[in-house]
Amino acid sequence: MVTATLISIGDEILIGQIVNTNTVYLAKKLYEIGIKTNQMLTIADTPQAITQALDQVGSTTDLVILTGGLGPTNDDVTKHTLCTYFNDTLVLYPHVLEHVKKILEKYTTTSLNKKNKEQAWLPEKATILNNQFGTAPGMWFEDDQKVCISLPGVPFEMERLMEDVVLTKLQKRFTLPFLYHKTVLTHGLGESMLAERMETWEKELPAHVKIAYLPSFGNVRLRISSEGTEESWVKDEVNTQVEKLLPLISDFFVGYETNSLEEKVAHKLTEKKATLALAESCTGGALAATLTALPGASAYFLGSAVTYATKSKEKFLSIPKALLDTHGVVSAATAAAMAKGAQEKFNADYAISITGNAGPTAGDPKADLGTIFIGIANSNTVWTEQFQFGNHRKKTIQKTIQKALILLLKEIERSD
Amino acid sequence: MVTATLISIGDEILIGQIVNTNTVYLAKKLYEIGIKTNQMLTIADTPQAITQALDQVGSTTDLVILTGGLGPTNDDVTKHTLCTYFNDTLVLYPHVLEHVKKILEKYTTTSLNKKNKEQAWLPEKATILNNQFGTAPGMWFEDDQKVCISLPGVPFEMERLMEDVVLTKLQKRFTLPFLYHKTVLTHGLGESMLAERMETWEKELPAHVKIAYLPSFGNVRLRISSEGTEESWVKDEVNTQVEKLLPLISDFFVGYETNSLEEKVAHKLTEKKATLALAESCTGGALAATLTALPGASAYFLGSAVTYATKSKEKFLSIPKALLDTHGVVSAATAAAMAKGAQEKFNADYAISITGNAGPTAGDPKADLGTIFIGIANSNTVWTEQFQFGNHRKKTIQKTIQKALILLLKEIERSD
Repeated sequence: MVTATLISIGDEILIGQIVNTNTVYLAKKLYEIGIKTNQMLTIADTPQAITQALDQVGSTTDLVILTGGLGPTNDDVTKHTLCTYFNDTLVLYPHVLEHVKKILEKYTTTSLNKKNKEQAWLPEKATILNNQFGTAPGMWFEDDQKVCISLPGVPFEMERLMEDVVLTKLQKRFTLPFLYHKTVLTHGLGESMLAERMETWEKELPAHVKIAYLPSFGNVRLRISSEGTEESWVKDEVNTQVEKLLPLISDFFVGYETNSLEEKVAHKLTEKKATLALAESCTGGALAATLTALPGASAYFLGSAVTYATKSKEKFLSIPKALLDTHGVVSAATAAAMAKGAQEKFNADYAISITGNAGPTAGDPKADLGTIFIGIANSNTVWTEQFQFGNHRKKTIQKTIQKALILLLKEIERSD
Repeated sequence: MVTATLISIGDEILIGQIVNTNTVYLAKKLYEIGIKTNQMLTIADTPQAITQALDQVGSTTDLVILTGGLGPTNDDVTKHTLCTYFNDTLVLYPHVLEHVKKILEKYTTTSLNKKNKEQAWLPEKATILNNQFGTAPGMWFEDDQKVCISLPGVPFEMERLMEDVVLTKLQKRFTLPFLYHKTVLTHGLGESMLAERMETWEKELPAHVKIAYLPSFGNVRLRISSEGTEESWVKDEVNTQVEKLLPLISDFFVGYETNSLEEKVAHKLTEKKATLALAESCTGGALAATLTALPGASAYFLGSAVTYATKSKEKFLSIPKALLDTHGVVSAATAAAMAKGAQEKFNADYAISITGNAGPTAGDPKADLGTIFIGIANSNTVWTEQFQFGNHRKKTIQKTIQKALILLLKEIERSD
């Protein structure tokens, strides 16, 4: 199997200033075309660190992708180092210079400076990969041991280069196997309990069929994968194993190939041509943001009344002050009134309401920290459930979102 | 200087299924106590990969922190490998077994299973670090070359262990320098143009004073850092350099030590005892979610009318249908009406409105993809600005949020 090492260059990663999302993207895309990442490295943007990393990788890998260390503010350290490493020399590429000028004209109000001009000096023997969206092009080096690709660190530019140029070139350069996987989304049972249920099944798996557990906020995704030269054979094998697995976990099964509950909700509602409205308190718009992060949300999503302040609950959702005073803001009665309010005000087929104390301190002193009420309404009915998610704010918000989506899916299935 | 290598163990990172946030957290925390991370490695959860990584690191580092590869579903591969690597033997720790039982009773409905019991068998010579929130404890190994710490991969558990136990132990074990940095937040000028303005200043920096550029969605954070044995000297040096820098970039300066614009907005509004309401269309609740992700938002944040559907703009913000029909949903007139509507309906001191086409396809065919109008209102006035952020949905949403916060800060400063 063709293997890859990903090298991220950047002091800002090493001092913990930014999350490295480039490697996730790269590993995923490589995996999809049949290349397995066996190591990721993050190093400083110095010639020494880059050279040492390349030496360290040596011949243990077929492909190295470096990101970062290109661009005007760090003097293109990656370019100079790779040029030396691969015994190459820099020459001026006129079409790159033209491109740098165009990019600056399009996206900035400034003209070409010295640092930008230097970006058009590139290794003579390397293949230059044109970066449509930025001034730093990618470079493809090759020696008898491996292919070595240098890409800009800006995620958007790197992603465009991968999808427009690099992936196709890699597929031509290497003979790649067929990879296939199926993802099973479960909700409500912890990782170790799932593993126990699946123990015998897991032990009997053929050696090249792999299972991965991916827990997050109450969900566990199970990823069953295999590889081979023949597509139909690989697919059949994975599907057969998934069929055997399902009866063991059917009570916690949510769906196949769904990356997330929000994708499943979006799919279900769009298919049914049904609409959804929200009334959010402690999640502060995060459920709406989760749903609208996916393109096409306008097909079913009408809006959210983010009623953070108590008064705004009265105003926007017509909840009587007396009800709020009697039961408190964090209560089943308020959750029900919010869900019904949202459903009626937005004239939606379904509505979800959320009210609770997300922590670290209680907004409503009558209710415990981490206590959350979720309400689900349609035009005929409204019901609520109560949860306790602890006092870690971000975790509570995320768990609440996942649970709210699960409850909505229940209601949709009930009415199917 | 004491240096660290961070090793993340997990196939789910290598296949690009999850973002590795643990290393960001660890690097940041280590840096704060004076330990510099010089390499991060992500490897497979096999004994071979772990042993190879430890050999590779060798004596190039003083501290190794491994995360992941502990826990019931992957057979504690890290524990067994480290136990062998450090010539140790597993013994049963009765107090850990008691703890595992308690955790299971508290957080699950199930009793101890075989896999959980095995978690209480731990290396005899290592120092066991109690994990309050999970079943897998941390382990502290030490040989004549380095300290090697194994922590669970679950972010929340790892973070608690670091803050409750590990950081203090590291400060006792090593003699650490004093590190100091100051962050300057700028908005509106690109990285390379900033670098050009700062070129002479940067060249004249003393060798041990470092500058890092951190661009994100229209902002660039500048981080000026230094280190030494004497606190006052290190601080003075950084502050002196920052004072020299400021006049060069004053027209794009937003603030000091602000991690984000939302923190600055939260701080300003809380200080002024002023309130804020939102009317969001294409950002779909993401601005509200950004603000309410910070604890204490209820001090100033009243809520957001996430009016995704056109009808909900009429209903919740009392925008006349005629105005929407004449000017279109994505227009300055609609943005102004939305901002005024939110300000009045929520009875807020300030309001922000956002309407636009976030892409990848246009909701309002009259306006271009990526065209965004932002409105700012207070009780006396309302004004709008128009932007063009391209057709990358996530990027457009993030850029819009940053720009909206900048415009609000302008309005607040104007009325100060």
